[in-house]
Order: sequence, then structure tokens, then C-alpha cells
Amino acid sequence: MNKTDKKLQNMAKKVVKQIENKNAPSIDIPQRGLSNVFFDENERILKIGDKTSKRTFINIAHTKKFMQTMLVSSYAQRLVRDEKHAGIRELYYALKHSVGTGKENTFEDQSESNMVIEDLERMLDVLREQLNLTADRRGFIYGDIVIVDNGDRFNASKLGRGGWSVPGNIEDIKFKKSNVDYILCVETAAMSDRLIEEKFPTKNNCLLIACQGQAPRGIRRLLSRLHTENDLPVVVFTDGDPYGWYIYSTIKQGSINLAYLSNTLSVPKAKFVGMTMDDIETYDLRGVTEKLKDLDKKRIEEELKYPWFKHKKWQKQLNKCKKMGVRIEQQALANKSLDFVAREYLPEKIEAKDFLP
Amino acid sequence: MNKTDKKLQNMAKKVVKQIENKNAPSIDIPQRGLSNVFFDENERILKIGDKTSKRTFINIAHTKKFMQTMLVSSYAQRLVRDEKHAGIRELYYALKHSVGTGKENTFEDQSESNMVIEDLERMLDVLREQLNLTADRRGFIYGDIVIVDNGDRFNASKLGRGGWSVPGNIEDIKFKKSNVDYILCVETAAMSDRLIEEKFPTKNNCLLIACQGQAPRGIRRLLSRLHTENDLPVVVFTDGDPYGWYIYSTIKQGSINLAYLSNTLSVPKAKFVGMTMDDIETYDLRGVTEKLKDLDKKRIEEELKYPWFKHKKWQKQLNKCKKMGVRIEQQALANKSLDFVAREYLPEKIEAKDFLP
Repeated sequence: MNKTDKKLQNMAKKVVKQIENKNAPSIDIPQRGLSNVFFDENERILKIGDKTSKRTFINIAHTKKFMQTMLVSSYAQRLVRDEKHAGIRELYYALKHSVGTGKENTFEDQSESNMVIEDLERMLDVLREQLNLTADRRGFIYGDIVIVDNGDRFNASKLGRGGWSVPGNIEDIKFKKSNVDYILCVETAAMSDRLIEEKFPTKNNCLLIACQGQAPRGIRRLLSRLHTENDLPVVVFTDGDPYGWYIYSTIKQGSINLAYLSNTLSVPKAKFVGMTMDDIETYDLRGVTEKLKDLDKKRIEEELKYPWFKHKKWQKQLNKCKKMGVRIEQQALANKSLDFVAREYLPEKIEAKDFLP
Repeated sequence: MNKTDKKLQNMAKKVVKQIENKNAPSIDIPQRGLSNVFFDENERILKIGDKTSKRTFINIAHTKKFMQTMLVSSYAQRLVRDEKHAGIRELYYALKHSVGTGKENTFEDQSESNMVIEDLERMLDVLREQLNLTADRRGFIYGDIVIVDNGDRFNASKLGRGGWSVPGNIEDIKFKKSNVDYILCVETAAMSDRLIEEKFPTKNNCLLIACQGQAPRGIRRLLSRLHTENDLPVVVFTDGDPYGWYIYSTIKQGSINLAYLSNTLSVPKAKFVGMTMDDIETYDLRGVTEKLKDLDKKRIEEELKYPWFKHKKWQKQLNKCKKMGVRIEQQALANKSLDFVAREYLPEKIEAKDFLP
């Protein structure tokens, strides 16, 4: 029996036992929210604490959620046993129906089923991907690595300028030989296209992974697996602004929402190559900065307070950003020349290990 | 000399000649906006009219734009000659600088350079991709077709469950053998993942193209080229709502903004397989509809007026949507069963040619 199947089975058995013993069935669920999340200074990732809540069937405040938890668990078990996968929106639609002859629905909207999925992840210590539930996909990978998936075997550097579109669920794929020294994770597709055109991955012996904005789960899992299984260092390259830096921090140590998954979704040893506020001066990019918006300013204040941005190098960048009132995009490097980023900026910084922690 | 290079060269030569003849240099640019766009009932695509505006260097209202047009033209020509590509944001940053010793910038923000790029497309009757300017990429292709790009040759059905990530610029790629009968273009990545898991493309002999929302230019061009060059019919599958139907209409006959490109970016013979309002009744999906938002309602009113939605079958769907006040998502079909869409819904509708025009 599959490990996840077993965990689901054990939970269900406990509930059945409670009923057979004429006790009110209940389950213990680790608490969500900031109060049960902490930053592990040692492992340098966000983790979940040990506060739990009891969810009891005969408490009317819990009954609906208890029922939802059973529905989702049973659906996930069926998926795992049938070796099928469902999107989390499909799960919502699949389980939505009216209860009995009444007008009450099992779920009113998808936020309810999403919550239950997160509860299950925390409770069973599994990824939703291991429950065969799939997040929406975005992002691609390009470079010299052999990937085996679904009976196919291909090299992600032999796919023209396109690269491989990374699925939402990468649990079953296998990595074979990777003839590279590190992974460069890039925020925008446009910058990735630039680096592919400049043959950067070939010349610098690296894999290129485009997350196309905030890294989706498929990409985070891919980075984490490649880092662990193929022993590849991860270097992150985003815009020089609070949003780009947050993308980096999520890749590195996880997000508050999904803190319980940090150990399987994060790369605590990831390094940040740019863009930084210092770059604006070093490379004389003052003419191509953009003014900060209110949301950017708000984000700076938040990030200044996060423990994982407490390093003095990050505090310096954040304060400098606040003071200068501007942001700098990856693509602004085109102001020097199109190939500047691939010929000078990245190779020099990476060679000199000029990283932020 | 490359055709686009020649067109740019000819424009530049005219300007030089005007200067040599001591005339004020000027160029004629087809007018933008709804007043110069019409729906060609015969070809069934949006087209641009023949109204032009003169842009003159010595008119101070035009001087800046004239200068911008020359800057962008010259940059594009360099790209074409160097066989390099630039993102439209890269172009903006590359050309942004202060003029002379003054404080005036060549471009204040990207909307200005974007406008000039569109002007050039209309003026020279070329795609920005032919000017080697690249739009942001999104979307992927999966299925039995051999693609040749950048010296690589691969079959897009041999890439596991991922598929090929479609670049923003596909002008240079070549299609070899395609062992398929038609193309299914799907709105969401999640539905595409469902169809891949169900082996729909293999069992039904089709290519699957995911546009992941409104079809980006790379995907529209891919559809248009595959339709024309490989003689493949295009069937579109979106959510059953005004936004999904607009995605379809853009693929089919172009958008108002880019009407001047309809002949190279559109597939006037594309058909629509679903979702429709009728599906809600036929497949008993009332329990999994979602309420319309204000924006949806506004869109219905707009679409009811568009000439390309005047067909009585579309008017019926739009009015029905308005009356029922709900929308239906592709993924709601999971309410029947996960494989329902691949086993019944799509094969039956496509076999019966149960399409909207």
C-alpha cells in the first residue's frame, strides 16, 4: 500500500474506532495562521508549531467541516488508489452537491475545499501532490538534463528555444544525468528568453528555470528535488523590488501559508544574485528605474520585519529601496546592451559569488 | 536583404529624400482605434480601414513621436540584421535615455514605445515578430507533431506530461509531419492536464494547445500557422462565460486593438465546442454553476453588439447567460466524473460536429 494511502487509511480507522466505541468522532488538526508558524533559525526555513485544534463531528460549529474533511480524504484516497490526479478546482466541483433532500451544499465555494486540503497536508504531513491533487501549472525548464516522465525520456536542452513546460505535479518524474553545475531560477519569461537566445545555459553550464512570477508549486518542488537529488546549487534572479525579493524568499524558506511544507518545497541554501539596489549604482542604471508604488512601499515595511530578511545585507537593500523610492527590473539591463546580462552581469556576479544570503 | 529589413529601409529612404529636398520629413500612419476598424463579413475577420494620419517632424505636437518612430525603426532594423530578438520591454529600456543635455526622456513609459511598435506594424504591414520583437510567452503544446527549432528536432508527444513550452516568437520554427486530424485549443492549463492524463490527444488524434487564459500572440500565431500550413481544423474549448467566448472570438477573428494583424494571427474557420449555456441543461450541471459578476454582465452587453457575435446561435447563448445569471467552468464537468470530459463530452460533441460558429 502506498504511504499516503496508508496515512489516509489510519486516520479513517481512528474515526471508525471512535464510532464503534460510541465516542463522538473527532480529529486533531495542526492550527493554521501566523501564531503557529515560526522561523527555524537553524534550518533557515519556516516551520509549523505544535498547536492543534480538535474537529468534532457532534459540535455543530464543526460538523460541516468534519464532513468536508471526510469527503476530501475519501476522494484523495480514491485518486491515489486509481493512480489518477485531479486539479484542486476539479476536486471542488466533483464533491459539490446538495446534502440529502435539503438545500445545504457540501461546499459553497472553492476556498472551503482548499482549506480542507491544507488541513489534510498539515495533519498527515504530506504534500497535496502526494494526495494526487495538482496545482495550476506555470513555468518552464531549459538546459542539459535528461528527464523521464510517463514513459518518455528527453533532454531539456534539445527542445529548440521553447524548453519543457513544467506540469503542476512532478512527483512521478525522474531526473537522470544533469551535465550542469547549478540552476539559475529566473523571475520572468522574457529574461529567460533573452538568456536562451544568448546561449547562457550552454556557455555557463547551468539549468534555467523560469517561474513566470511567484513560483508555482510545480516549480518550487522541481527546484527542491533537483537541489536535493542532483545536488545542484540554486541561484535566483528576480527584479530588484520587494515583490522579486519575496519570490526569492518563498523559494528559499517557504511561505507563511504553506509553512508546514517548507522542508519539501524549499531550498534553504538558495542564493540571490540580483537585481539589487546596489546594481543601480554599479551599472549606472539610474535612468531606467521605475518609481515605487504604494503597494511596493507597504511590502518593504513588511519585509523589514520578517526574521528571514533580518540579515544586515537585506536590511541595507530594503532601506536603500525605501530611501531611493525606485525599483529596477531585470530587463532594464537591456539599456546597456541586449547581451550585457548574459555576457557580463550574471557571469561576473556568479563567478565572484557576489550574492545576497 | 530580408523583406522586413527592406520595408524599414524604404521608409528610412523616403525620410532622407524629404530632408535632401529640403521638405519637412513626415510619414503616413494608418489610424488606430475603432473608427478605422471594420468586420469583413466576407473573410469573417476584423480588418483595418484606409484612414491614415501624417506624422511630421516640424509639427511640435508630432516631433517627439516622430523621433520615437525613428528610434524604434532603427532598433528593429539592427535586430533583424543581427538576427537577434528583443522583448518589447527590453526595447523600451534599451531606447530610454535623456535627450541631449536636457531633462526630456526619449520615452516616459512603455506605453509610448508599445504604441510606436503598433504604428510600425500597421504602417509596414508586418508582425512585430517579424521586426524581431517578442511578446511575453505563455501556453504549451502537446501532441504528435514534429517541430524543428534552433537546430533541434523533437516530437511534442514525447515530452512526458509536460509538453513543449511555446516561445513568444515562433516565426522561425518549422513544422514537420503532424499525425493528427485537428487541433483542440483549451483555455486552462488544468483542463489540458486532465486531457493529457486521460490520453485524449492520442485516442482522438489531435494536438492539444493550452493558451492559459486569453491567447498570447505566440499561441495565436502557432494556431494560425498550423491551420494554414498543416491544414488542421481548430476547435476551441473554453469556460462557458463571456470571458471564455471572447478568448474564442479573438482566436477566430482577431481583436480590435490588433485588427491590422487579423490575417496572420487569426483562424476564421475555427469552431467552438463549448462550454455553452445549453450544456448546463444537457449534462445536468445546474449544481455546479457560478454566479455572474458585474464585469461578466457588462461583457455580455458588449458581445451582444459585436458583429461577429450576431449569429443567432451566439445571440441565443449570450441572452441565455444573461437570463440565467450564471457561468459554467470547464472543470465543472468533473462533477460527472473525472474522465467524463475526455470519454463523453468532447468526443460526442466533436463527432456530431455540435459546434457554435
